This record gives sequence, structure tokens and C-alpha cells, in this order.
Amino acid sequence: MSKPATNAISPRREEDFPEWYQAVVTAADMAENSEVRGCMVIKPWGYGIWELMQGQLDRMFKATGHKNAYFPLFIPLSYLEKEAEHVAGFAKECAVVTHHRLEVNAEGKLVPTGALTEPLVVRPTSETIIGAAYARWVQSYRDLPVLLNQWANVVRWELRPRIFLRTTEFLWQEGHTAHETEQEALHETRRMLDVYETFARDYLAIPVVTGRKSASERFPGAVDTLCIEAMVQDRKAVQAGTSHFLGQNFAKASGIQYLSRAGKQEYAWTTSWGVSTRLIGTLIMAHSDDDGLVLPPRVAPTQVVIIPIIPRDEQRKEILKACGALAQQIEAEQFHKENIRVEVDQRDITGGNKTWEWIKKGVPVRVEIGPRDLEAGTVFVGRRDRGPKEKQSYPKDGFAAQAPALLQSIQEGIYDRAHAFRRAHTKVIESKEEFYAFFTPKNGEKPEIHGGFALAHWNGSTEVEAKIKEDLKVTIRCIPFEEMLQPGSCIFTGEKSEQRVIFAKSY
Amino acid sequence: MSKPATNAISPRREEDFPEWYQAVVTAADMAENSEVRGCMVIKPWGYGIWELMQGQLDRMFKATGHKNAYFPLFIPLSYLEKEAEHVAGFAKECAVVTHHRLEVNAEGKLVPTGALTEPLVVRPTSETIIGAAYARWVQSYRDLPVLLNQWANVVRWELRPRIFLRTTEFLWQEGHTAHETEQEALHETRRMLDVYETFARDYLAIPVVTGRKSASERFPGAVDTLCIEAMVQDRKAVQAGTSHFLGQNFAKASGIQYLSRAGKQEYAWTTSWGVSTRLIGTLIMAHSDDDGLVLPPRVAPTQVVIIPIIPRDEQRKEILKACGALAQQIEAEQFHKENIRVEVDQRDITGGNKTWEWIKKGVPVRVEIGPRDLEAGTVFVGRRDRGPKEKQSYPKDGFAAQAPALLQSIQEGIYDRAHAFRRAHTKVIESKEEFYAFFTPKNGEKPEIHGGFALAHWNGSTEVEAKIKEDLKVTIRCIPFEEMLQPGSCIFTGEKSEQRVIFAKSY
Repeated sequence: MSKPATNAISPRREEDFPEWYQAVVTAADMAENSEVRGCMVIKPWGYGIWELMQGQLDRMFKATGHKNAYFPLFIPLSYLEKEAEHVAGFAKECAVVTHHRLEVNAEGKLVPTGALTEPLVVRPTSETIIGAAYARWVQSYRDLPVLLNQWANVVRWELRPRIFLRTTEFLWQEGHTAHETEQEALHETRRMLDVYETFARDYLAIPVVTGRKSASERFPGAVDTLCIEAMVQDRKAVQAGTSHFLGQNFAKASGIQYLSRAGKQEYAWTTSWGVSTRLIGTLIMAHSDDDGLVLPPRVAPTQVVIIPIIPRDEQRKEILKACGALAQQIEAEQFHKENIRVEVDQRDITGGNKTWEWIKKGVPVRVEIGPRDLEAGTVFVGRRDRGPKEKQSYPKDGFAAQAPALLQSIQEGIYDRAHAFRRAHTKVIESKEEFYAFFTPKNGEKPEIHGGFALAHWNGSTEVEAKIKEDLKVTIRCIPFEEMLQPGSCIFTGEKSEQRVIFAKSY
Repeated sequence: MSKPATNAISPRREEDFPEWYQAVVTAADMAENSEVRGCMVIKPWGYGIWELMQGQLDRMFKATGHKNAYFPLFIPLSYLEKEAEHVAGFAKECAVVTHHRLEVNAEGKLVPTGALTEPLVVRPTSETIIGAAYARWVQSYRDLPVLLNQWANVVRWELRPRIFLRTTEFLWQEGHTAHETEQEALHETRRMLDVYETFARDYLAIPVVTGRKSASERFPGAVDTLCIEAMVQDRKAVQAGTSHFLGQNFAKASGIQYLSRAGKQEYAWTTSWGVSTRLIGTLIMAHSDDDGLVLPPRVAPTQVVIIPIIPRDEQRKEILKACGALAQQIEAEQFHKENIRVEVDQRDITGGNKTWEWIKKGVPVRVEIGPRDLEAGTVFVGRRDRGPKEKQSYPKDGFAAQAPALLQSIQEGIYDRAHAFRRAHTKVIESKEEFYAFFTPKNGEKPEIHGGFALAHWNGSTEVEAKIKEDLKVTIRCIPFEEMLQPGSCIFTGEKSEQRVIFAKSY
């Protein structure tokens, strides 16, 4: 057996969380940095997780009345300029196309040529280009609502990229809707946030806090930004999805006007909402351990792996046959109305190496079948939510029928652990001193160790927010919808506070 | 009834084929040009067709052992330069990113800033960037084969764009594989061409010719390019998919080397293969008629539409109820193992307007239910492969059970019609005179009218090919795998010819 002396991932989480994260990504063979700064290569295991996320989100978007469409990658500068806050928010991170040809110059070097009259920006988000289309399509209230989504790549130039969490190019979906009334648009904004919350909870096994952003953390050009915020294992927050109420800002910028029921020209009310491959980073940081990735079964490309243990070559045929037969039985079982995704690892390497590879890849259930199991009519089962040595023997005959319940138990266990972790590191804070202490490492602690989520009263002032950010690198993650909604006094100024807000360090 | 006096689409095909094409796209609400030159907006109906194509191709790729991954949008110039033919082939159509910020200049104008040390090309195809990754991943013969595909957008600057068929940005899939031996790579190249042929035949209902390209029509950098070629209704050819055997060219350019079984460092053998949103354009031109789009059921976002005919408001409730009940019955039926996609058009416009909209959108089956049908227990059914007035009454009770057979009959009928059309316009040509006459409009004919596919002997000379292209705008579409493989004499030079090749005008 090639089991490492301690853990499969080095460093461990408590030793160096950022390095541990990168090591988990590498050990699970999910993705890697490319030579193009900030752009990642998503490898099959990482992309397989993304495909499962996409598939489910797409079904949820369609179930709420949305259709998919596709809009251009390039945005003329003049479009971007139309919404002042929007362009200010994205100007510093735009990749700009200025030429449309290459030629070999006098020195034999390949250089850009064919300068464009108007440079094009590679979309950092598509409000402006989609707004231009909606302005063409919407004439009357009968044309509303427009409920579209697109799956696309976007580019935001990153100076400090971190794989999955913050990359120059990333994959995402962006929903863009236009409505007749403010009320409808507000309803849509909240409805899609609820979709994200449900998805995070039921698929990613991540409990998220829902709420609205403070003014300084809003999407550039939005009236209101709603978000789901997750806590990961270094107690920081990750903004995992956002849903923006854009009011009439973009409708005015793009000219999305319609003839109302009352016969008047009105501007539409619009929303946009998105989640991205950042969800994969969030998933890793929320659940994984010092042996590597831990995948909730519902987003695991392989839910059950069967590992033949073949000490002697003459046993190969019989053991592989038993593995194949069991795989067929398990595949015929359903987990949440889908056939269980099962794989037999037939590679010609030792069973121990195989086991450790699948542990590092986060596969929820490992089933080993060796000569002794064959004789005894048993299988030897490891769960990824338990220690690598904590295996259990099951009678082979009934095992397939138990697989759905086993997966469900793992799915729920992972959620419960994440939920307990967040509860343990969320604290009601009643004074400024307590607040600063909560976010300040104690003697002997690493600088990145801090309390987690602080629920504190705040007077709504952007200046107070800015001071805290400067002092502690702590920001308001959201003004929550459902936690401790009572009014009180701001812990920084003593002024009136409508409700507690959540402060945290964040990615 | 708002039935137009003649046809729903103007101009008709025979009047002006290119204009008819654009009018079909518009009438079906599939896509439109954006203000960014050459970039299209794919609207929900067009994107819905693409999603069905994607879904099926993806299943076929996975069934042949491929997995999906994702590689960067941007390619450093230095990568592109590595394969000389490749860069020469794409240099004239590359969008180049030269800056990564925007700022407001002294005149208050938004301008690019933050010049990149090395400009980046927006991928026109990904052999070079994927090759760089494979060079990192492949060390030993044990790492081979690598069998990956990506779904992505690519950019090739177009000076004469045509929606779906030739756009600056388009959506596609690109498979990229690396193998231990030449034989394996050749097998893969052909296997994926076969996947494309099967998909075109069974889903798009398009009979395609399979073959290899002549040297002058090869993918830049490939040793051999295999293709599927479709004939559309103006008798021109559309290259609908290609599969490239890249030999060791890109492996040498990117450094994809492995330690062989014999312990030697060897270069891998690679392939690439792709189809794009061009398939949608091919589909339109192959099947549609003067009333608009005609969709083969297997790629129709809606396969059956139910249209309530409500002359008097007091009948509304009862008629809508009957429509809803029938929709449920039809949806419960399966067509090729998928539930039938059915929609009830409940909009508040006249039944005649609805009918014409669905005809223009190409929905295979229209079912009308009005008061008289309700009384008689019947439904009134129109098939998109027949004339708009050619409707048939069916007993309502058994109709749902007949829907799968009806859809299959339409699927096959559309294929048979396209196949007969191609046969009728494919001619064996025995002399140069006959060849020139075949591609030259006769007195009184429009200049775009020509014979179709010419099967003629050719001596293999690139000069002869170039002369024909110059004289007639006719090129060799492919050297077919399966048609008239006997040797003979070149009709242009009298020299020896190994087999007939297919000449045609093309998109």
C-alpha cells in the first residue's frame, strides 16, 4: 500500500490554506494554470463537475420560464460608455481587441495589423450588448417580459489570479431579463437568488447566507445586488452568486422602451444574475480535507468507484467479472431520479494507488473487491466523508440497492458538517473592541486566522465600511434577509442601525 | 385567416436564394446580426436547435470515449507561430488583444491602455494552445491516448459575413486527440468523421458525402482533412464538418513527446475535428421552403404545437382544457427514447396568425383544436413537410399514440427529399466541355444556377484546380470515399486519374 505516512495533501489546511487549496486542485487533476496569465485549463475532472452544475442550473432556469440565447463576445467601446458607473467599474480589467489581422514585419516578427476604427472589449459581462438587443426587440408591453440566459466565457483582467476563484477568463451563466414593472423585476431578482440558494444547498451541500450588498459592494450600475455568501474552511466568505436589480438604469442607457398598457412610452425594468466556475472553487474550499477533494454526490462525475484488488494474476478475470456485474447493478439504481454514475477502475496499477487517487478526486463511495471478498460474498466500502481507513464490509448481494441511501447520507452529512462549521464560526458581536478582536489573530496564531462571520449593528455609512476595510481587510458580505432582523445601535458609532449585517474577510 | 396570398417567405428560393435564406432566418426568429460586424445574436429558437445538436453530439463523443475540458480563449502570438502553415492560414483573420485596461483620455474619450508585452490572439481554433497543454501532460505511452473535446466560441475575422454560415464569432466543438501510433490517429480521424456523418443523416436528415480534401483545401497544418459535404437547395456544397489527421506536425510544433514502449522519445500523432453553428445554416438551406424553416423532428425545439381555435370567448375554457389534456398525452409518448416536446400556444392572437408563425418556425406537427373538433372528437393536423393547407383530421383519442410514428415519417420524408435532390443534381461528367457547361448558366438562367455536384476525373494537379476555381468559382469539395472509385483519365489534361472527385460551387 502506498498510503502516505500522514495525509495525501501537503500542506494541510491549518498549515497553509491557500497552498493546500492549490494542492487539492492539482491532486484531483481538476485544472491548472496556462501560460496565458490568469487563464486556466479546466481538465476533465473539473469540467465534469462544471457540466453537472450546468445541467442542473439549466433545468432550474428553464423551470422558471427562461430560455437560452447567445450574444456577441465583443462589445464596442461606445456601448460600454453608455452606463457611467458600469464602465467605471470594469474599465480597469478589460481585454481590448484593437486589430483584426497579423502580418510578418520587416524583422520577420509576427505583429498585429488591420487596426479597428472602434476598439472592441472582450465582454466582462453582457448588460450593454444584451441591452442593445432588447432595445431592438421590445416595442410594446406585449413583448415583455424577456427572460433569457446565456452560458458563456467572460474576461476580467486579473492581476492576482487564483484558480477557479478569480481568473482572467472564466465560464459562467448570465441571466438577463426585462420587465414591465418594478415589482416584477424585483420579484425576478429575488426568485433567481432563491434558485441559487436552493442549488447551493441541495447540490453543492453548501449552506449560504442570502442578503443584499451594501452600496459599496454593489454591481456597477445596479440599484440593488442580492447575493449568496458561503463560508469556507478558513472562515472567509466567498460570494458564490449574485442577482442584480438594475432598475431602469440599463434600460435608459440602452434605450429599452415600450408602449405601456396606458399608451405611454416607458423604460423597462431589468435584472441580471450569474454564477460562474468560481462555484467550483467554493465547493473545494467548503468541503475538502487534508486528503484532497470531497465531492457531494450530486455533483460528483463518478459517484461510486469500484476498485478491483488483484494480488495474483490468475484471479484477475474472476474479480473483474464480479466488479463489472456489481457496476451494472449499481448503475441501474437511481439517486435523485438519475442513474448512479459508477466506474470500474481497470487500470494496471496497484489497488492502493488507485484508492488514493479516488480519495484525492473526492469520489463519494469506493468499493473494493478482492479475492477474500469474492469468497465471503462481501464488498469493502469506503466513504469519502469518513477517514480513509474507516471502511465497512457489506454483503455484495444487497449492496447496489443500498447505494442510493448511502449517497444520500453522504450528501446530507457533508451539508450538515458545513452548516455546523458556519454556525460555530458565526458570532453576534456587540462592541467595536470585540469586533476588532474577532478579526485580529491572537498571539501565536497565523495572521490569516480570524473569527469568521460577525453579525453586528452598523449605521449604514460607507465611511465606516471603508475604515473597517482599511484596518482589518474586513467587508460587509451582506445585509441578511433572514438573520437577527431586530434594530439596534451601530457598534462603531452608536448611531441607529436597522438590522445586523454580516462582516467577514472574503475571497 | 392571415394566410399570405402566395407564400410566407419573400423572395422565394428561385427568385433570390441568398435573400430567401436571410428571410427564413428572420421569419423563424432564429438569429440576427448585431452591431458588431460579423457577430450574430442567436435568439432562443436558433439556440434551442443548437442545444439539441450539442446534446446529441456530446452523447456521441462520450460514447466514443471522449471527455470534455476547457482551454483558454487567448493564444500568445508565440504559440501560433510554432506551426508555419497554421499561422499562415489564420493570420489574416485573427482578432488581436493588445491592451488590458481602458481609461478616459484628456478629451474625455475612453481609450485602451495597459499595453501587453506579448499580444494575444482570440482563438480561431485551439491546436496550438491545446498542444501546449498536451506537451505538459504526456510523458509516457501510458498517458496516451488523450481524447478530449471542448465546446467553445472561436473568432475568425470575416469580411463577408453570412449569418450561421460564416460569422466572425461562432460556436463550435473542437475535439483534440493525441495517440501513440499513426494508425490509431488515422482510425480516430475516420471514426469521428463517421460520427458526423451519422449525426447529419439521423438527426439533421441531411445526406452527406464523405471524403478527403485536396491539398489546397486542407486545414492549415494538417496532413489530411476529411470532411462531410452537404448539397443545399441552390445546388451548392456546404462543408458541414471536418476531421483532421495532423500527423506529427503539431506534436513537433508543441513538443508533445512520449517515452515509447521501446524506451525511445517519440512524437505523438494528433487529430482534431469540429462542427459549428454553421450546421444550423446548412440545415436551413437543405430543407426549408418558401413558407419558411422546415425542421427535422429530432432537432426541433418544439416537435408538436397545439393551436386552440377559439372563435367565441365562452368556448375558451373548454377548448384550452382539451388542448392541455392532449398535450399531456403527447408529452407522455416517446420519440427516439425522449419524451415528445409539445407546446400549447395560448397566446391571445388569432389561430391563423399562430399557425403561420409555427409554419415559419418549422415545427414538424401542428394540431388545431376548435369547437367543431371538440364536438366531433377529432383534431386537425398539419405536417410541415406538406403544404400548409394539406391538413388531415384524426380521432382525438388515438392521436397521441400515433405521434411518434408521425414524427418518424416526417424525419424520414425530409431525409428522402434531400437525398433525391442531391441525386438529381449530381452528374458524372466525362469531358471538359460538359464540365464547363454544367457550371455555366444557360441563356435566361440566373448566374447562380448551375448543375450541382460534378463527379469527374482529375489528375491531382493543384494548378488544374486553381484554373477551374478562377474560371468557374468551382472547387473540389472532396475526394469521396464511397462513390465511383474506378480509375480513369483526367477530363482536363487526359492524364491518369485514380478516381473521380466531386467538384461544386460552395459556401
